[in-house]
Amino acid sequence: MAKENSQPFEKGEINPYSEFFTGETHLNMLVKKDDVFNSSIGNVTFEKGARTNWHKHSGGQILLVTMGVGRYQERNKEIQELKKGDVVKIPPNVEHWHGAAPNSEFAHISIETNIPNNVTTWLDKVSDNEYK
Amino acid sequence: MAKENSQPFEKGEINPYSEFFTGETHLNMLVKKDDVFNSSIGNVTFEKGARTNWHKHSGGQILLVTMGVGRYQERNKEIQELKKGDVVKIPPNVEHWHGAAPNSEFAHISIETNIPNNVTTWLDKVSDNEYK
Repeated sequence: MAKENSQPFEKGEINPYSEFFTGETHLNMLVKKDDVFNSSIGNVTFEKGARTNWHKHSGGQILLVTMGVGRYQERNKEIQELKKGDVVKIPPNVEHWHGAAPNSEFAHISIETNIPNNVTTWLDKVSDNEYK
Repeated sequence: MAKENSQPFEKGEINPYSEFFTGETHLNMLVKKDDVFNSSIGNVTFEKGARTNWHKHSGGQILLVTMGVGRYQERNKEIQELKKGDVVKIPPNVEHWHGAAPNSEFAHISIETNIPNNVTTWLDKVSDNEYK
């Protein structure tokens, strides 16, 4: 029997972009950018309370939630709760962050859209006050 | 506790493209084509023995396996077994089919690549002899 919060994809390595995250995260790059598929697809796993910095993608991003309970917020909007099976469509250039809930591991597939015209800009940390 | 073969995404409706498949399949369109994200992402669930027809995508396709055991074959190559966590990168214009193993349900996320320049061409059924 699989555990309640098991996910389909391996956690992979310690996130090489950890400087742009708070807390412990893992990254498993499922599809790396190339000129044939023009795709960049990763599986990101967040420990309890871990989250991205504020950031934006010039070409947008899609998240497919595969495990646990998480949070998503766009600048100047309310925090949304995310759960397994949810899909988040993040429009180009919208500042946002995503991560785990305080008491749950969380994982999503991350799909960069409109490659090769998609640049990620990392911004400030999500403070404990913003995270709540 | 989740079942061994549970998947993160809902099965969705009976596949509206069933004429191009053998056996029972379901389709849950997670992201529909638009001009903002240029993505088409679906979750496809195959009952035991179900499979696509032979087909090809002019812009390629990526499969992310989320449940069960399945099969993938490119024209004039051996059948490959697929299992949860596998990633299949199907290059543009390569004739292929995918589906469940005879004794296992199977599900994958399907990501069309290079949209809007991606046309799917459906071909002949995968015979019982080809499927084995």
